[in-house]
Amino acid sequence: MSDIEIAQNAKMRPISQLAEEQYGIPHEHLDPYGHYKAKLSLEYVDSLSHKSEEGKLILVTAISPTPAGEGKTTTTVGLGDAMNRLGKKTMICLREPSLGPCFGMKGGAAGGGYSQVVPMEDINLHFTGDFHAIGVAHNLLAAMIDNHINHGNALGIDPRRIKWKRVVDMNDRALREITIGQGGPANGYLREDGFDIVVASEVMAILCLATNRADLKERLGRIIIGYRTDRVTPVYASDLKAHGAMAALLKDAIKPNVVQTLENNLAIVHGGPFANIAHGCNSVTATKTAMKLADYTVTEAGFGADLGAEKFLSIKCRSAKIAPSAVVLVATVRALKFHGGIERDHLNQENLAALEKGFANLERHLKNVTQTYGLPCVVCINHFTYDSDEETALLIQKCEALGVRCVVSKHWAEGGAGAEELAEAVLEIVDHRDPGFEYVYDINAPIWDKIETIATKVYGAGGITAGAKVKEEIQRLQEHYGDLPICMAKTQMSFSTDPHAKGAPSGHTVEISDIKLENGAGFIVAIAGNMMTMPGLPKVPTAERIDIDDEGVITGLF
Amino acid sequence: MSDIEIAQNAKMRPISQLAEEQYGIPHEHLDPYGHYKAKLSLEYVDSLSHKSEEGKLILVTAISPTPAGEGKTTTTVGLGDAMNRLGKKTMICLREPSLGPCFGMKGGAAGGGYSQVVPMEDINLHFTGDFHAIGVAHNLLAAMIDNHINHGNALGIDPRRIKWKRVVDMNDRALREITIGQGGPANGYLREDGFDIVVASEVMAILCLATNRADLKERLGRIIIGYRTDRVTPVYASDLKAHGAMAALLKDAIKPNVVQTLENNLAIVHGGPFANIAHGCNSVTATKTAMKLADYTVTEAGFGADLGAEKFLSIKCRSAKIAPSAVVLVATVRALKFHGGIERDHLNQENLAALEKGFANLERHLKNVTQTYGLPCVVCINHFTYDSDEETALLIQKCEALGVRCVVSKHWAEGGAGAEELAEAVLEIVDHRDPGFEYVYDINAPIWDKIETIATKVYGAGGITAGAKVKEEIQRLQEHYGDLPICMAKTQMSFSTDPHAKGAPSGHTVEISDIKLENGAGFIVAIAGNMMTMPGLPKVPTAERIDIDDEGVITGLF
Repeated sequence: MSDIEIAQNAKMRPISQLAEEQYGIPHEHLDPYGHYKAKLSLEYVDSLSHKSEEGKLILVTAISPTPAGEGKTTTTVGLGDAMNRLGKKTMICLREPSLGPCFGMKGGAAGGGYSQVVPMEDINLHFTGDFHAIGVAHNLLAAMIDNHINHGNALGIDPRRIKWKRVVDMNDRALREITIGQGGPANGYLREDGFDIVVASEVMAILCLATNRADLKERLGRIIIGYRTDRVTPVYASDLKAHGAMAALLKDAIKPNVVQTLENNLAIVHGGPFANIAHGCNSVTATKTAMKLADYTVTEAGFGADLGAEKFLSIKCRSAKIAPSAVVLVATVRALKFHGGIERDHLNQENLAALEKGFANLERHLKNVTQTYGLPCVVCINHFTYDSDEETALLIQKCEALGVRCVVSKHWAEGGAGAEELAEAVLEIVDHRDPGFEYVYDINAPIWDKIETIATKVYGAGGITAGAKVKEEIQRLQEHYGDLPICMAKTQMSFSTDPHAKGAPSGHTVEISDIKLENGAGFIVAIAGNMMTMPGLPKVPTAERIDIDDEGVITGLF
Repeated sequence: MSDIEIAQNAKMRPISQLAEEQYGIPHEHLDPYGHYKAKLSLEYVDSLSHKSEEGKLILVTAISPTPAGEGKTTTTVGLGDAMNRLGKKTMICLREPSLGPCFGMKGGAAGGGYSQVVPMEDINLHFTGDFHAIGVAHNLLAAMIDNHINHGNALGIDPRRIKWKRVVDMNDRALREITIGQGGPANGYLREDGFDIVVASEVMAILCLATNRADLKERLGRIIIGYRTDRVTPVYASDLKAHGAMAALLKDAIKPNVVQTLENNLAIVHGGPFANIAHGCNSVTATKTAMKLADYTVTEAGFGADLGAEKFLSIKCRSAKIAPSAVVLVATVRALKFHGGIERDHLNQENLAALEKGFANLERHLKNVTQTYGLPCVVCINHFTYDSDEETALLIQKCEALGVRCVVSKHWAEGGAGAEELAEAVLEIVDHRDPGFEYVYDINAPIWDKIETIATKVYGAGGITAGAKVKEEIQRLQEHYGDLPICMAKTQMSFSTDPHAKGAPSGHTVEISDIKLENGAGFIVAIAGNMMTMPGLPKVPTAERIDIDDEGVITGLF
């Protein structure tokens, strides 16, 4: 059965019953969206924040992504279900999928096999409308910028220095670079612009870091959309008086969403910033709410541990004053063979030499987690049908040689039951070991040094470099924004900036090609290489296969 | 109190209770969106369609719109509430407001004063996400067009003849005319394009005319996005295999939404196509569902009766095989004085001469309704504080001279109680008079003749004219699409094509400047003059005043 068929065969329970039964969430604080999705009221979220007890946090991260797929979301769901099976009150806390990629190549992001959150189609398509609200809030600000210029430009915005693009939740390469304002005076002033996909919007990052409505509005007001004609005075969204209306548009989007797993465990799915130019984890509100409700919270971060876990720890945990008690590092035999140099078409054949070679990637991430951050870690081999016993045995042995527990987990095929051993390994750590968590960089170090620390300590680079213009910009930002964390935008495919450098390259130089202040989100984006903020569709997009029958049953979504 | 304050003070009842209590709608067929909005399942809608009894339909329309405001939606709500007060089981059936204009000048569209549907902020902002879904479905097709061309253009689409633009739910003049595909080969081919506001999308018109999921998908597949390089072979959405995914995106949008009035009467609010380039009424599904549930359904059509009622009757009623039992024609003393030549700033001063002169507009609409269509009619004077007794008396007298009942109605200030006399007048007609409804044109008449009939019979024009190119296109369409109804796109401000020609101009010539086949919606748009399909924001947009406080209470929306 395909993922969507499994999901459609799920015996879902009414979400309000489930929320009340499992976590005592009162009916009036649960805003239903249909019978199987809901939002928690902010009053309820706020009431929880006064509780002193807090559950333990488990971060699921992975090796450097490959086309073979690793299964972080699947593992997060499987592990959560398994812990619930073992009688541990565990909340799963995920990002919302981006709609656009569902029609392209990537597909949805609600887990896979027997470890999914449901209703799968709803979660992957519009869900509760959060991303639409974010898109409109973003585009309202964009419209207000051009409208302000059109009506006299009292603020003196330099139209050549507008940084605020427009967004759409669609893979649409034709909108990457456009010219707007054509057609004469009634349509405003001509200028170059472009569209990003909604998940790349700073509004998304803001929503995911905001702690309440007041903080959200303040952050929105702080957005810098560009500069005045003096080239240096920032133009804030608050200068355009846009932030109030933007916050109003996000009235419901700020509330965490609850759904359930195939095994009827409550899960929070909220927010989904890009993992390259943004921090790539679900909302602070979602994670903190989960930690107040459950004894254990299992959550994930985007891409591999070099990007996702680093930002989760350096940006989100720092901002939210939380820390994980353990890390689960997901790998697959297939992906490690890919890192060992095997082509995509040959990954199903046993190849111990390639596996051993590719293990270098896992080992580097493992050392980062355990040594750089001081966090206890379990390696999860997300099992595929073709994995040989010799291959999995080799991985277990190599991890054990490094003093780390490695568990082969079959949650994709078996659901929570297949991840019980993983759950036990995680609980063993979480309940008995104290994490010696340390931030990788001192927040008060100079911007340049913070970037350098990430590159050398996490990526294994020899150092960083940048052109004069970027160095100048770093210098300029240092004065007022020197205490912000860094959001690294680098290829997720490699520790280096070369997506083809598999395994664990080291001693390379990370060139910072651009630096960008996201003042509302509260971080500085250091860009190393070309970051795609608007994907395209492949020659045969998944959209061509997606269909719905007369009864409303969707097929072809994956 | 402002509209939003009145709305926020409403004592709303949980929508599922209300729906069950008032119409016996079972819990499982009501998908809640929060506690005060919901969607009806299509299974339920379908089960109703097998009921043989059907309630009576009352259409609320108006004189030619003026900046003074007439209050069609307010009257629709007030009348519905009044009928319910009189013990008549009456459903109110409205269009969904467009989000973009809420931030500009126009504001929302959920009624006004004490005749509103609530929750007002939700209905005016994202509501249940229908318009977002329509926007994404539209933009998916757009992305698939450029993607197809980018990957080799197997269909031979002529990039110069693509008619399918992109949409966004925002007043954003800078996007009216743009160039896309800039930035080199990775971004596709350069071409001119533009954005319309979502309500102008053909997908919106399709959703509002589709009778079920199968019909929706078929109509989506029939959309013509442009032509092949031979200039004449249409490219259908189905050629791009886009219609299945588009229909999947509209899975929930096709379900009618239910909310309540301030007086706790259930109302259906669903769909909202533009009233100029589209047909401007709520969905066929919504209206037919209301007619199956209630003994009386009060609904509205966009703009004045020359556009809104004409399209309601010629397009929607014909397609849905329904007809109104009575028409309520809304006018205000202020608006009629405006038609009599008084400037906006002086409308609050009594002026019987101007009123008498402006009455010509009302009289023309009235004659159209009663004589051209053969429908019984009541004139509703939507009362404003400044209206003098002499003014209202004059109107009543002039209507009575034409044999039509005219009622001064105070629902804006008093809610349903203020519209009881109107309700009684309407019931008197609906319960005792047989409408002799006739279509204004024969659907099998040639396209040219159909347009001419509307212009001469409804607009009082002397005739129509068109350039050679438009005539040629009409000729071309005649062969395959000759039996489609006409959707006139003309200024709403006047019976003529000159927005400044107030009152009741006659003998004018209507120039058809363009003709457009909307093959999915199933009508031919005849364009007379420039139609704005993407509004702009004013110098001080409403967005600047919209705000939300720490508790989530929105202000400044109207």
